[in-house]
Amino acid sequence: MPASTIKTSEVDVLIIGAGPAGLMACNALVKAGVDVRIVDKRPNKIIAGQADGIQPRTLEVLQTYGLVDRLLKELNQLHVAAFYNPNPETGEIELTDRAPDVSDTSTPYPFEATLHQGAIEDIFIDSIRSSGLDVSRPFVPVSIQISDFDKSSTDPDMYPVRVVLKRVDPLEGQIDTEIVYAKYVIGADGAHSWVRKTFGIEMEGEQTDYVWGVVDMVPDTDFPDIRNKCVIHSNHGSCMIIPREGDKVRLYIQLGCNEAVDTTGRVDKEQMGPEKLLDVARKSLAPYVIRKPKAIDWWTIYRIGQRVAARFSIDERVFIAGDACHTHSPKAGQGMNASMNDTHNLSWKLVQVLRGWADPSLLQTYESERRKYAQDLIDFDKQFAAMFSGKVKTAESEDGISAQEFMKIIRTSGGFTSGVGICYQESAIVNACHQSHAKNLTIGKRLPSQIVVRAADFHPIELQHLLPSDARFKVFVFAGDIYEPSQKARLAKTAEELGAEDGFLKRYSPGGNILAAFDILTVTSEKDIVRVADLPELFQTHWTKVFVDHKEVNGSRGGNAYANFGIKGTGAVVIIRPDGYVGTIAPFEHVADLNAYFAQFMKQS
Amino acid sequence: MPASTIKTSEVDVLIIGAGPAGLMACNALVKAGVDVRIVDKRPNKIIAGQADGIQPRTLEVLQTYGLVDRLLKELNQLHVAAFYNPNPETGEIELTDRAPDVSDTSTPYPFEATLHQGAIEDIFIDSIRSSGLDVSRPFVPVSIQISDFDKSSTDPDMYPVRVVLKRVDPLEGQIDTEIVYAKYVIGADGAHSWVRKTFGIEMEGEQTDYVWGVVDMVPDTDFPDIRNKCVIHSNHGSCMIIPREGDKVRLYIQLGCNEAVDTTGRVDKEQMGPEKLLDVARKSLAPYVIRKPKAIDWWTIYRIGQRVAARFSIDERVFIAGDACHTHSPKAGQGMNASMNDTHNLSWKLVQVLRGWADPSLLQTYESERRKYAQDLIDFDKQFAAMFSGKVKTAESEDGISAQEFMKIIRTSGGFTSGVGICYQESAIVNACHQSHAKNLTIGKRLPSQIVVRAADFHPIELQHLLPSDARFKVFVFAGDIYEPSQKARLAKTAEELGAEDGFLKRYSPGGNILAAFDILTVTSEKDIVRVADLPELFQTHWTKVFVDHKEVNGSRGGNAYANFGIKGTGAVVIIRPDGYVGTIAPFEHVADLNAYFAQFMKQS
Repeated sequence: MPASTIKTSEVDVLIIGAGPAGLMACNALVKAGVDVRIVDKRPNKIIAGQADGIQPRTLEVLQTYGLVDRLLKELNQLHVAAFYNPNPETGEIELTDRAPDVSDTSTPYPFEATLHQGAIEDIFIDSIRSSGLDVSRPFVPVSIQISDFDKSSTDPDMYPVRVVLKRVDPLEGQIDTEIVYAKYVIGADGAHSWVRKTFGIEMEGEQTDYVWGVVDMVPDTDFPDIRNKCVIHSNHGSCMIIPREGDKVRLYIQLGCNEAVDTTGRVDKEQMGPEKLLDVARKSLAPYVIRKPKAIDWWTIYRIGQRVAARFSIDERVFIAGDACHTHSPKAGQGMNASMNDTHNLSWKLVQVLRGWADPSLLQTYESERRKYAQDLIDFDKQFAAMFSGKVKTAESEDGISAQEFMKIIRTSGGFTSGVGICYQESAIVNACHQSHAKNLTIGKRLPSQIVVRAADFHPIELQHLLPSDARFKVFVFAGDIYEPSQKARLAKTAEELGAEDGFLKRYSPGGNILAAFDILTVTSEKDIVRVADLPELFQTHWTKVFVDHKEVNGSRGGNAYANFGIKGTGAVVIIRPDGYVGTIAPFEHVADLNAYFAQFMKQS
Repeated sequence: MPASTIKTSEVDVLIIGAGPAGLMACNALVKAGVDVRIVDKRPNKIIAGQADGIQPRTLEVLQTYGLVDRLLKELNQLHVAAFYNPNPETGEIELTDRAPDVSDTSTPYPFEATLHQGAIEDIFIDSIRSSGLDVSRPFVPVSIQISDFDKSSTDPDMYPVRVVLKRVDPLEGQIDTEIVYAKYVIGADGAHSWVRKTFGIEMEGEQTDYVWGVVDMVPDTDFPDIRNKCVIHSNHGSCMIIPREGDKVRLYIQLGCNEAVDTTGRVDKEQMGPEKLLDVARKSLAPYVIRKPKAIDWWTIYRIGQRVAARFSIDERVFIAGDACHTHSPKAGQGMNASMNDTHNLSWKLVQVLRGWADPSLLQTYESERRKYAQDLIDFDKQFAAMFSGKVKTAESEDGISAQEFMKIIRTSGGFTSGVGICYQESAIVNACHQSHAKNLTIGKRLPSQIVVRAADFHPIELQHLLPSDARFKVFVFAGDIYEPSQKARLAKTAEELGAEDGFLKRYSPGGNILAAFDILTVTSEKDIVRVADLPELFQTHWTKVFVDHKEVNGSRGGNAYANFGIKGTGAVVIIRPDGYVGTIAPFEHVADLNAYFAQFMKQS
């Protein structure tokens, strides 16, 4: 056997696990110029199965990284959900209702999407490769320690986390050992997270009795809604249909509590193959027929666990993200979305701290924001999973919920399932004290979709597209009517205060270059002509940065931003966090409150 | 001096000239699997200046080749045209009107666009490279001959055009001579076309007295509409502003008839540099100021010529396209568009003939369609150029046209300038005898923009996006209400006739594979639920090929296709040519007329 070698290296951020959570972090960090490394224990990326649901908010987020165009080409869109229930007389299922699959239309992507996890990972991998980075694999972490001495050091050049990695050469069997010293580590290593276990972090919550099977295939069937999302309650169990890219379809099939389970209560895949799963589905789907498919793309059996990690962070030096910190039922299509949004939330905070712009305490908001979200997700999922797995109320049986109750829950949970309704609680970076000045622009939620036109050239613009994930805070100045003399005077005064030496813009800008750390975007109220040059200089940093609340020239989209957001003619300043969430709002006279907001977590440079 | 070498080769299509016309042809042909070669005399591609206007129809066409996404990222959009005229009292210019720059909204791209020619060429070059082809340069053609014996041969394996090319190695000075035998040659070699001159084809028309200068730069100005298209008539001459990609702007500046012209009447660039041109512009633009730009990107001076080649084809073996067959003023932004649309028109015809699907006589429609269009373009351009270059009617002078007349001409010419209104005359491939069955779907025009939803999954779809430039005719079956018994019966009968052995679908399909040469797309009238399986088999070749005239689920786009197209509930079959133009229409009872239409130019396989 060849002798083993030991390498030592330093890196700002080490990411363990190259699934959606890890790759999202890696891409965000590498594009921000952070020294990052990502390792994975799998020798190759996955090519089928696993997660597949992509929610509107996730598409919005991927747009901010420039990744949505390719995704939109590859994915399948779900526009309608169809509901099937037993006919009271025949007992066979029939279509009882249909609804838009996404009920919240405040997004440029008002549909659910599906694409297998491997294809999504490919988009990230190609993106990080274009920045000269790749996933290091197969690497298995074998030890991780945080230096007690270094971890709370304020010296930005400390590498307090020591990770030992082993790489098994798949051809020669040689084992390389490597010691990596990192400033920060992200454990995005899945439901059985080694990082989580190593630090002894408990998963809180429990297993349910619900056992489900999953089959991916190109179906041969006469079921008429096979290309729509279907929720099927039958007298023989529940079933869910999720159409996917190409001609593929995923079937979720409810099993009995004791089916495919061994004596210890663990799922035993040996007991049931895909053909047996299809037989169960066939009973539910009668009178419709599923013929034997040419091939099964992927299949699995799982028991739903609903658990959240007790902590998401160890000393704000090691973070866990994705499946490592929350497991739940896949049927609300949330898993991959929650995972990617975990690290979308974390990445800009790491960037700001690593650049020396923000205080390390900013990193505490990762756990407070994302753990709260994960708990909400589990609570929602309990209701949702019970609803799916539970019995249907029929003429004979009062057990279970009615189709009407089911629909109502589906509709009211739309903001949550689509991801666009997620609201982060008050914290150092979420301050709602002036909420009334933009009452429909909820502080803590992401900026909703809104089209305005550019003042200089009437180009219609989606406001969300002005929020790239570039680690900068965006300062939206809703200027009101700039040709109304008193408003113009107020605006000039606000510009003066915002541009002052002790204002947050200059105070927290590296080298006094405001646009390095902030972007300033101005939206005036509706006017046929607004001249960029008529704004204070601070509010016209470039001709592409000034907008009018006006509908598009040729078409009917856009306009009404002030009304939609609940902003009055007196205007307001809206601070959007680098991840697209509204951080705070202030009326023109309260620039001091904006200064105080940033003083909570930013460092004077 | 090294000895020269002579190579001999054969190719189906040789393209001389790698500008927009040549590259459009090359891309279309290589994607269709045609053996094609493209040569250019320039050692490198151009990097600045030249043509820059891209019209909505051109964007639609580039979409059909999968090239529009990148283009949309790089180009600048013009949404508004602003009109400036002299103030009657001060004589200084002022804003007198504004209008949407594109008045026809039947397109998914209701704006004019600008991007320099080199960037557009790059998009084509990258596309053909992805098919393993590249531009051969620098190659100069020195002789071209068509074999009298071979040219009218019906043997598809004849190469009757002999072209001698010379390549000068830019480093070693070595001259390579090459003889290429081609089935067809496209001369896309510009306004001074060697191909055109070699075959002695006259340019018909004349030079005008109008002399204009062009300057591309990043302007430093207080002119408020600098990011809009501006038409400026001043007491000191006319001027046009065309904003471009990035911060660049193009200025068209009218010169006196004798300015920058030598004694023979030819433009003499020596007499006037870009700074002098800007001085002329400054007089027109007063009271606004143009400061000295940091750099001039590109500039030129030209005299408008309005001429069309007497022929576009020699024996349907050699074709000329683009600037080689029409020259006109650049200010209507048509040049590059006309050029690309020439070869978009020609390419599918060559593909069909080379594949043995269509009779070579189909190639005659290239000249008949595109020469007629070029003549219309010149006629329009005469009016347009005169309008721009002419004087403005003022209180003091009754000469020239009024601002109102000018606006009226601009508005009525919208269909023509945007390209979406172009209508090919009746021919073997344009048969309007059943126009009344879809009275707003003009036979000879391109299919207008229309959103419908897919029956199987309610996915909203732009009908234009169902028309890739894949050399196949598209058969749109407007099926009406398929659940109305009499309509259902009529539909079944139509399917039977269309699918018959002597129907055009089977008759003109290679090896009986209908979908190789045709695509069949079905649109039913509005219904909440349409089941794909309820259609005749011929009209449901795949679940993605059946649509409902319904608006999108989440939003307000789409629907009303039958009303918009003027199609009654009794339905109609609409034949779309491979280039997106409506070829013919027939009611269900007249399938025989469709068979007759295709018999005009297709060959039984």
